[in-house]
Amino acid sequence: MTSKKLRIVPLGGLGEIGRNMTLIEYGENIIVIDCGIMFPESHMLGVDLVIPNTEYLIENKNIVRGIILTHGHEDHIGALPYVLGDVPAPMYATGLTRGLIEVKLEEAGLLQSADINTVEPGDRINIGPFRLEFFHVSHSIPGAIGIAIDTPLGLIVHTGEYKFDYTPVDGQLTDFQRLADYGGRGVLCLLADSTNAEKPGYTQSEQIVSETFDRVFSRAPGRILVSTFASNISRVQQVIDTALRHGRRIGVVGRSMVNNFKMARQLGYIQISDADVIPREKLDHLPPEEVAIVCTGSQGEPFSALVRMSNRDHRWVTIHDGDTVILSATPIPGNEELVHATLNNLYRQGATVIYHQLEPVHVSGHAGREELKMMLGLTQPKYFIPVQGEYRHLVLHGELGREMGIPKDNIFVIESGQVVEFDEDGAHLAEQVAGNYVFVDGLGIGDVGQIVLRDRQHLARDGFFIVVVTVDYETGDLVHEPEVVSRGFVFMRDADALVERTKNRVVEILSNGGGNPEALNAKLRADLSRFLYNETRRRPMILPVVLEV
Amino acid sequence: MTSKKLRIVPLGGLGEIGRNMTLIEYGENIIVIDCGIMFPESHMLGVDLVIPNTEYLIENKNIVRGIILTHGHEDHIGALPYVLGDVPAPMYATGLTRGLIEVKLEEAGLLQSADINTVEPGDRINIGPFRLEFFHVSHSIPGAIGIAIDTPLGLIVHTGEYKFDYTPVDGQLTDFQRLADYGGRGVLCLLADSTNAEKPGYTQSEQIVSETFDRVFSRAPGRILVSTFASNISRVQQVIDTALRHGRRIGVVGRSMVNNFKMARQLGYIQISDADVIPREKLDHLPPEEVAIVCTGSQGEPFSALVRMSNRDHRWVTIHDGDTVILSATPIPGNEELVHATLNNLYRQGATVIYHQLEPVHVSGHAGREELKMMLGLTQPKYFIPVQGEYRHLVLHGELGREMGIPKDNIFVIESGQVVEFDEDGAHLAEQVAGNYVFVDGLGIGDVGQIVLRDRQHLARDGFFIVVVTVDYETGDLVHEPEVVSRGFVFMRDADALVERTKNRVVEILSNGGGNPEALNAKLRADLSRFLYNETRRRPMILPVVLEV
Repeated sequence: MTSKKLRIVPLGGLGEIGRNMTLIEYGENIIVIDCGIMFPESHMLGVDLVIPNTEYLIENKNIVRGIILTHGHEDHIGALPYVLGDVPAPMYATGLTRGLIEVKLEEAGLLQSADINTVEPGDRINIGPFRLEFFHVSHSIPGAIGIAIDTPLGLIVHTGEYKFDYTPVDGQLTDFQRLADYGGRGVLCLLADSTNAEKPGYTQSEQIVSETFDRVFSRAPGRILVSTFASNISRVQQVIDTALRHGRRIGVVGRSMVNNFKMARQLGYIQISDADVIPREKLDHLPPEEVAIVCTGSQGEPFSALVRMSNRDHRWVTIHDGDTVILSATPIPGNEELVHATLNNLYRQGATVIYHQLEPVHVSGHAGREELKMMLGLTQPKYFIPVQGEYRHLVLHGELGREMGIPKDNIFVIESGQVVEFDEDGAHLAEQVAGNYVFVDGLGIGDVGQIVLRDRQHLARDGFFIVVVTVDYETGDLVHEPEVVSRGFVFMRDADALVERTKNRVVEILSNGGGNPEALNAKLRADLSRFLYNETRRRPMILPVVLEV
Repeated sequence: MTSKKLRIVPLGGLGEIGRNMTLIEYGENIIVIDCGIMFPESHMLGVDLVIPNTEYLIENKNIVRGIILTHGHEDHIGALPYVLGDVPAPMYATGLTRGLIEVKLEEAGLLQSADINTVEPGDRINIGPFRLEFFHVSHSIPGAIGIAIDTPLGLIVHTGEYKFDYTPVDGQLTDFQRLADYGGRGVLCLLADSTNAEKPGYTQSEQIVSETFDRVFSRAPGRILVSTFASNISRVQQVIDTALRHGRRIGVVGRSMVNNFKMARQLGYIQISDADVIPREKLDHLPPEEVAIVCTGSQGEPFSALVRMSNRDHRWVTIHDGDTVILSATPIPGNEELVHATLNNLYRQGATVIYHQLEPVHVSGHAGREELKMMLGLTQPKYFIPVQGEYRHLVLHGELGREMGIPKDNIFVIESGQVVEFDEDGAHLAEQVAGNYVFVDGLGIGDVGQIVLRDRQHLARDGFFIVVVTVDYETGDLVHEPEVVSRGFVFMRDADALVERTKNRVVEILSNGGGNPEALNAKLRADLSRFLYNETRRRPMILPVVLEV
């Protein structure tokens, strides 16, 4: 009796589809894969972060049986503090992922009530009607997994985020054997990482980065600073290993780097003896050729360690002639200006700077096109849903599936919130649920929407111009000179003449008779809008305040 | 009697140095090389464009003898309308550059009074004590030149923007012979394009792009749309040539593309017969395999032709399944989000999309590292000033000079406004003049500075919150309920409770006695700032208005 349907729903959004959250549903059971945040786009002014719209999840919270976290990056675990309150399901994660989740939930005061279960590659667990098996994948953070989900209708494989690195830092390969085994058993549907569907060939191994580090370390005359993502635990280990090989000890700088370093060391994901760690207060005072530093700031983040150093504004480290700085990351689109400014300033301090345009100091954590084909070849899925990419990545990944013989109708290139439904006859598109996103700004979740955003964009462009008019409630005569408050429009200290002309204009408008406050308000707004545009060719937000006293 | 000094001053700024304007001075004579704009960085909210600070130029306007424009890109000619009013010097430019300048000055109502002289590669002219010779360079626009300037102290060579393309679209090579000849005669100082000082090897030829076009055109089943910079006249010619070879005629779409196409055709820089041009109203109605379209929008600009098409919002062209769209450009840093959104939307319309990550549809117009060495090898300069790049590019270009044997002290890696002075004993750094930039916003030039910008950034982040308090001028009692005006802070329609609480707070503050309006204002601001932060964790701009009636 399997008249029940299997449903797959990629959620999240903001350009990308199915990276931050995906639901697998069968009957009265949902499991959630990942629960991550998105970073606001540049036009989302003032927004702190973006989380998946969980409307559908909350509607169904009573049947959510578990949340599986494939790895510890923010775009996969960052939304937990915002979701667990509404949907307090048990979580499943590997050791390092769990460590990162605990730090996050601790900060949010949610750790006590959280139910987190440690799982490791090879583990099998049952959640409702689902039998899950986790398999190891290579990614830019240790402890990353994919998931094979046995359902009453067949086997679903979710790759997590992966590449096929034959020489990863931790020596553990993406699990070919299990993937091939799933393919042999028959995969109903593959959900696979599409991030690098534009990148031809194979993603290079992390070993390339170690080789570059070795080359740079062997010729650097002074201190060496390596900046990378604080979550890139294996990169930090690479820096440690290289430094020790070259007779240098290690300093760790930048809040999130220090925290992750400490946690990953405790859990055994970073290996270094106490004697090889340099206290920060000694970093400027030891012989430079004995010092290597790992630090935050690889994206040019304004208050990060590296940016402070590039501005001679860091408490423990002052960059000198002879220092070598490695930016072991590529700029995330949108961060280029900040990264470039940081590079320029490091050069101005006299440093030798090594970055991705000059040397292979970073490799992607995602599979290139040939690896995407390898995954399709290993798993031989009947149906294929490309996920974890923008729409164009999904299209390109889908085309690879077609080239490899999956029928067009068995490939679903879909938007967030689009439900794909499986029954005994096959798969088809079902309804669309709310698959978009919600802004977090300060304490507010969802209260900043398109209207507030449009106002911020208007204010950002031309500022505001407020005129306060106080009139006698009986006669309509002005009882006080009009008051002007304006910011972001013109430089007010030099704008006396413009303000004076505007006030005269207001008096003139009022002398023609005002009508009720609403009518007067509309009239002032329309007239001043024209007036100020003619004067300045700018369009500030104009808000008259009419008071009757 | 040459006790006079030769001075070189790169101006402009905003990341890059000496791209937008460079001065060559000798005695009472200045020539200006280029007069371009910069595009505002993302934090320069509401700024329309950025022009070089011309303080120093204006101080010396009586000795400015001429303005040489090396080519017709905006970052080299765009500031003329803002500079010619103060410094009405004669201009020198090749035919196409002149055409582009005339369009610009016409729009600004400055064409009548302008003195523009057409020069061609090989021409020699005298300006004051300078003897100038122009030489052809390959760049991403036709009519690009470099300049050799004979001065009483020696020969200065300014490369303009160049690459060594052996198979350019117009068949004209960068002028090896003249460059080698200058090297033979002895170059005192080389000022050379540093844009691609990070790029190893040689920049690929424009011919690669033609080959890609041929490949794409030969397999495309429907219409072909090619989007590129409107100024990239030779790319437009490449599209025309390819289209005609494949039995397609050409439509031109997008305002700036239409204008440049028309002008460049009139001047003979674009070759196409009338019969081969498709009127825009026929573009959606001819057999698709007979149509090719060149259009604007390669940077994802919000109101450009391609972006409108990607949103099904273009008057003449609706994208269909089977259409092929080529983005023949790489995104300028900062434009990635817009370009990616456009690509995704084109895929959603069913188009096949070809862009730089998938095929070589664009090549840079600037020399790579091996070409930079070739330029240094041809010209053999005694002194070397890398220009036209950000600081890191200049450092890297300077290092190439050192590798090729120029002594460290003869290489000047300098910031905008830094004067390099030559006399009979050699060269040294002289004073620093104002080398930065000025914002243009609407009619205002320079009135938007750091203060207005900081206010816009504040407003963009958290909006504003204004409370208007009307008190009796004798008793200090409120004579009207406090009025609140707020935008960009919270969604006001849902914020009644917050506004109510805030008003109550204001009444409470006033009931404790206000003091004079200034004191009351300060008190309200401080108190409401804390109050609203605690309520929302946001920091809107708070501006109390206290009226005494």
